Amino acid sequence: MSTENVKPVEWNVAASDGEARAGVLRTRRSVIETPVFMPVGTQGAVKGIRFESLEDELDARIILGNTYHLFLRPGVEAMRHFGGLHKFTSWRRSFLTDSGGFQVFSLTDLRKLTEEGVEFRSHLDGSKYFLSPEVSMEAQSALGSEIVMAFDECPPGDADHQTTKKSLELTTRWAKRSRARFDQLQNENADCGRLGSADGLSGRQALFGIVQGAGYDDLRLESLERTVEIGFDGYAIGGLSVGEEKSVMYRVLENLAPKMPQDSPRYLMGVGTPEDMLEAVGRGVDMFDCVIPTRNGRTGSAFTSRGKLNIRNAKFRLDDGPLDPECGCSVCRRYSLGYLRHLQQAGEMTAATLISHHNVAFFLELMRRARRAIVEGRFAAFHRETIEKMASEGTPAV
Amino acid sequence: MSTENVKPVEWNVAASDGEARAGVLRTRRSVIETPVFMPVGTQGAVKGIRFESLEDELDARIILGNTYHLFLRPGVEAMRHFGGLHKFTSWRRSFLTDSGGFQVFSLTDLRKLTEEGVEFRSHLDGSKYFLSPEVSMEAQSALGSEIVMAFDECPPGDADHQTTKKSLELTTRWAKRSRARFDQLQNENADCGRLGSADGLSGRQALFGIVQGAGYDDLRLESLERTVEIGFDGYAIGGLSVGEEKSVMYRVLENLAPKMPQDSPRYLMGVGTPEDMLEAVGRGVDMFDCVIPTRNGRTGSAFTSRGKLNIRNAKFRLDDGPLDPECGCSVCRRYSLGYLRHLQQAGEMTAATLISHHNVAFFLELMRRARRAIVEGRFAAFHRETIEKMASEGTPAV
Repeated sequence: MSTENVKPVEWNVAASDGEARAGVLRTRRSVIETPVFMPVGTQGAVKGIRFESLEDELDARIILGNTYHLFLRPGVEAMRHFGGLHKFTSWRRSFLTDSGGFQVFSLTDLRKLTEEGVEFRSHLDGSKYFLSPEVSMEAQSALGSEIVMAFDECPPGDADHQTTKKSLELTTRWAKRSRARFDQLQNENADCGRLGSADGLSGRQALFGIVQGAGYDDLRLESLERTVEIGFDGYAIGGLSVGEEKSVMYRVLENLAPKMPQDSPRYLMGVGTPEDMLEAVGRGVDMFDCVIPTRNGRTGSAFTSRGKLNIRNAKFRLDDGPLDPECGCSVCRRYSLGYLRHLQQAGEMTAATLISHHNVAFFLELMRRARRAIVEGRFAAFHRETIEKMASEGTPAV
Repeated sequence: MSTENVKPVEWNVAASDGEARAGVLRTRRSVIETPVFMPVGTQGAVKGIRFESLEDELDARIILGNTYHLFLRPGVEAMRHFGGLHKFTSWRRSFLTDSGGFQVFSLTDLRKLTEEGVEFRSHLDGSKYFLSPEVSMEAQSALGSEIVMAFDECPPGDADHQTTKKSLELTTRWAKRSRARFDQLQNENADCGRLGSADGLSGRQALFGIVQGAGYDDLRLESLERTVEIGFDGYAIGGLSVGEEKSVMYRVLENLAPKMPQDSPRYLMGVGTPEDMLEAVGRGVDMFDCVIPTRNGRTGSAFTSRGKLNIRNAKFRLDDGPLDPECGCSVCRRYSLGYLRHLQQAGEMTAATLISHHNVAFFLELMRRARRAIVEGRFAAFHRETIEKMASEGTPAV
């Protein structure tokens, strides 16, 4: 069968409610109901949570891998040796890999940017590396993720209009080069995750483009138009939640997201808190990823239906209730606040693994509940009630 | 029903092979087939392993809690508030708690020993505490463990004959006081783990005595005689694996263990490596505990049927085989050496949790295999073959 005209992913909007959408994204390795939160597995593991739990209990359908980290260690050759990220890690469902650009551009002192790409020094040992659209596509074909991200430049959150415009022009040129090299690699069968048969899908990787433009609505729309012109399987919004005011993020989403192609999934990169995700869902975003459930989990900070809790708080010392009485995860069903606080105070790593587990459960479930609300046409009320409840107790979520 | 004449634990030797015994120890909360390895849950958690795994996959029937640590944090009052260690931690099977003595005597600079007990400063904040046979029994009744250990003095491994004799005389007096206070507490219903009905058992805690005497065979036998005179539900061997030569430990076990009561379980405290456990089983020991499976797991050191492996070793970089091809644990069934090495090198806590999981699986399974060998009358051959295999590859186990 020729796969030339068959898509790598299938996208359907099952229901919508205002701008909010309940979609189904089918990849060669899993069916993803949206809105969806994607747990982050930076170095090939979601910190503190075994894949068994992500599959059996939490039912995550897609997780992230970070190309920058995996490019440096174990490296592209090791990845090809193992036959891609799925075989290496044993995660059988979908992976989305970022392009590596975001991490490289965070290394402000360690990088040199040219038209060709970016030279940088590894944060691990200072040795020199080079990333470009081509190198990123090659790395992501070795990883064999279901969704590959184009290589973009991410300007600082406070960049001026001119700098941002120049940057998005570079991003556009890089998007074209990403697309070209990606297509070559697919035709060369370089994709380690390739499946021969995938129920009507091509078995190939999908490529998502990234819209930049910082807080400038005109540049966002220009970036969107030029990215859609190139043509991708999905569209991401990059360069938000990088230090700008919340109001800026919400305004950009308000003006941008509804204009993004209806027939493709929309992914807001690196976002965010429960509050931010709900705001974005209400503006038409479908996919999210963020490290906060696991990062906060490691410091004893729990997300709950009543807001954020700091497990170190002395008031929990003798509390035999769960982290979140409304949560059905295995941590909330079994362990008390008092016990979790004890583990945290005692420096037991089990505190980190249990609270991270709950936090990821909470994020995944929040998106499932948002989806049900959209399907039932009550998203606005669900949104309002959820936010009110989160503000009712605990510390306000950051 | 009067429980006065009903025992807290039931002990049966199902088979023996030379001095080695295959026993069944029944407590009010679980049935423990021996020889058995007891994972250590120092502060109310087995480091890096969720109770769900210990129950569902690893099938540990008894774990340890350390009275010293739990006495300091969360403290006896918190423990009583939560209704004991089972309710606090959610572990439903058996707990054995030590007396706290061993940890206190490790604080050489921070303690003051008298006939009454030992005053010490907490390693956490330097505040003053006092432990004695009575205080230890009270703490262990608050913990509500199935097996309580008498409060003993543990002399240094290099103590001379006179010092050791003096120490074991103190240990004997403390054993009597432990017994007396323990019995009072049972009668006062102070045991937080008490069960009203436990299938022919009293539902009460059991108390084990401890034989000291360092490397002196005459003192060991004297200590044994005086401990048995007092009368306990089981007998432990303390003060081994504290820095003495292996040959000393093996000689003491050879002369002591077979003379310990046949009709009670025998527990070698704080031991040990797979090699040490097998040596001790061959000399008639039934129960073991040690932190090495989890401590080593956190540094990337794995116990396998071919000996110990350091996961950091560069030779594993591209290895897609399991830690131990003969191990059926969920880590060996799913993850490769190359992936585990990557996680370890990348500083992912999942390396610690996965390798700890495998190590505990290996220790538990080693004792189950030893038991089958005893039942089938081939323990000596099993012992020899297991040791030969462990020496065949990898670094020799410490």
